Amino acid sequence: MKNRTITFKTPISIQETATIAGPKEGAGPLKDYYHNILENDVLGQKSFESAEIKIHTYTIKHMLNRAKLKENDIDCVFCGDLLDEIIGCNYTMREFDIAFMGLYNACATFGEALILGATMLDAGHMEKVICSTASHFSSAERKFRYPLELGSQRTPLSQWTVTGAGSTLLSKQDVSKIKITMATVGRVVDYGVSDANDMGAAMAPAAMDTLIAHFRDTGRKPDYYDLIATGDLGHSGSRLLQKLIKEKNIELNDNYTDCGILVYNRESQDVQQGGSGTGCCSLVFNSYIYTQLKRGKYKKILLVPTGALVSKISSLQGETIPAIAHAVAIEVL
Amino acid sequence: MKNRTITFKTPISIQETATIAGPKEGAGPLKDYYHNILENDVLGQKSFESAEIKIHTYTIKHMLNRAKLKENDIDCVFCGDLLDEIIGCNYTMREFDIAFMGLYNACATFGEALILGATMLDAGHMEKVICSTASHFSSAERKFRYPLELGSQRTPLSQWTVTGAGSTLLSKQDVSKIKITMATVGRVVDYGVSDANDMGAAMAPAAMDTLIAHFRDTGRKPDYYDLIATGDLGHSGSRLLQKLIKEKNIELNDNYTDCGILVYNRESQDVQQGGSGTGCCSLVFNSYIYTQLKRGKYKKILLVPTGALVSKISSLQGETIPAIAHAVAIEVL
Repeated sequence: MKNRTITFKTPISIQETATIAGPKEGAGPLKDYYHNILENDVLGQKSFESAEIKIHTYTIKHMLNRAKLKENDIDCVFCGDLLDEIIGCNYTMREFDIAFMGLYNACATFGEALILGATMLDAGHMEKVICSTASHFSSAERKFRYPLELGSQRTPLSQWTVTGAGSTLLSKQDVSKIKITMATVGRVVDYGVSDANDMGAAMAPAAMDTLIAHFRDTGRKPDYYDLIATGDLGHSGSRLLQKLIKEKNIELNDNYTDCGILVYNRESQDVQQGGSGTGCCSLVFNSYIYTQLKRGKYKKILLVPTGALVSKISSLQGETIPAIAHAVAIEVL
Repeated sequence: MKNRTITFKTPISIQETATIAGPKEGAGPLKDYYHNILENDVLGQKSFESAEIKIHTYTIKHMLNRAKLKENDIDCVFCGDLLDEIIGCNYTMREFDIAFMGLYNACATFGEALILGATMLDAGHMEKVICSTASHFSSAERKFRYPLELGSQRTPLSQWTVTGAGSTLLSKQDVSKIKITMATVGRVVDYGVSDANDMGAAMAPAAMDTLIAHFRDTGRKPDYYDLIATGDLGHSGSRLLQKLIKEKNIELNDNYTDCGILVYNRESQDVQQGGSGTGCCSLVFNSYIYTQLKRGKYKKILLVPTGALVSKISSLQGETIPAIAHAVAIEVL
């Protein structure tokens, strides 16, 4: 099998992170870890798309402030979102005098951004880059599913798109003990799931494919990591992943979870299978997981953002849902 | 000013290219340079989007055949297109057992792909990657403008989205004299153009911004290059670029052209300002320009793919059109 895992010659420092969480996310179990929580998710904008742009813009600006850096200190921003033509990122990046690489691997985009950003630093071509993704429940819901005004009933296997953004500042310099050490690049996997309301089932096989490649390429076992966190498989998707990968003789047990599970309280927040969206794993990683890495609770984690490569048109044209997942190993060295 | 130019430590070899042109493109001035020309642009598919996927898939397969390589020889494909969620690439990559990085910088995506692909090789993480983009007139027209069935009259400043795809195989090994030596990464530029039928005017300032950065960072002058080719500014956009950049004391003269100008015969093909689309510069570069590099007609070229970062929603919401351009220096060494 082809090796799909990159080992960075110089482990890449995570210098700083920043997050903004929506009101629902801010009322969830991770509320104490977010850098900012919105009181309302429209921010006085005329559209949900404009609100998403504001959230993403403020997140990047907030991180520059936290890191005491100016735009001119950043070589490039690698970012993406769920909107058509990643239009949110396009307008977000209009606010910054920084080079821009637009990415789209759906909800796996944050993993793609970390891999490409770290590679650019590892190649010695840049000094500091920002990897960032955002999503907004209301802009995603009306884009991929139904107008909110319809008040459509949500199906049992659906997930709740996270309103929020998370940004990670990577540095070529050895400025932090928390490093990106390895990454496994995903490929497109399609098991024939066609229910656009069951993204977890569509993405679980892609997560399995990338995890198997990661363990095969690195010789590591799941228990090497203190935490293995998929991006947004949600409750049912995560169980499906554990079931599928067990058939391949790999056990994901107590050290495995999913950012879409962590972000909401399923009992009290009525989110069906949990969180999803390009902002899901970037919000959770850049707040809760990064904090636990700093505190030493975790020393070795594997972040596996998962993306359903679907569009509203492809679903209407009767296509199945391909998916992809990228794995990024982050370790305290 | 911030340096935005990358110099590859080891110039990256362009090992092979492949192109498929639509019928209209195949009747244009570059017909003798395309590897394949379609007799019809639907390929027996149920939708234009499905046809675009076939075109892109066949282009990548054709290049693997030309290079006598198997999927397992390729480390990653960096690709993008104009469809929502780059859905064309998602389904194209479902056909290949190869790692996938989805990109979106609109019609500048081919430049982004060359930069990120070359960086991945320069970092030593991969051996061979494919950079590829595609577009289809009919899928783009009904997505960004009007249903074809409306038979809407085209405005004088509009451009014709290229039906076609172009793929470039990059190799870490020194297998070709034709190398990617440098690249200048673009940033988002918005001069306030809001006419979605005048993309050339929206993109020209971005091309200027990147060209100025490239000449500033490298100390090179326009006459260093045998050819400077922007991606898809078209006739009016190219003239606008020349006018704008002249005010900055940079002259783009006889060695300057635009892939959107080269791809059609304006007099006989009724394409208003010329070609556009993510497939425009990848089709022209991977056929005509690459052939001229092999023949020695050109020894130093600067390819500047240009992208209008617009969506149909952003236009309807009254937004202006941000744009971006990436510059890639390709030289015979």
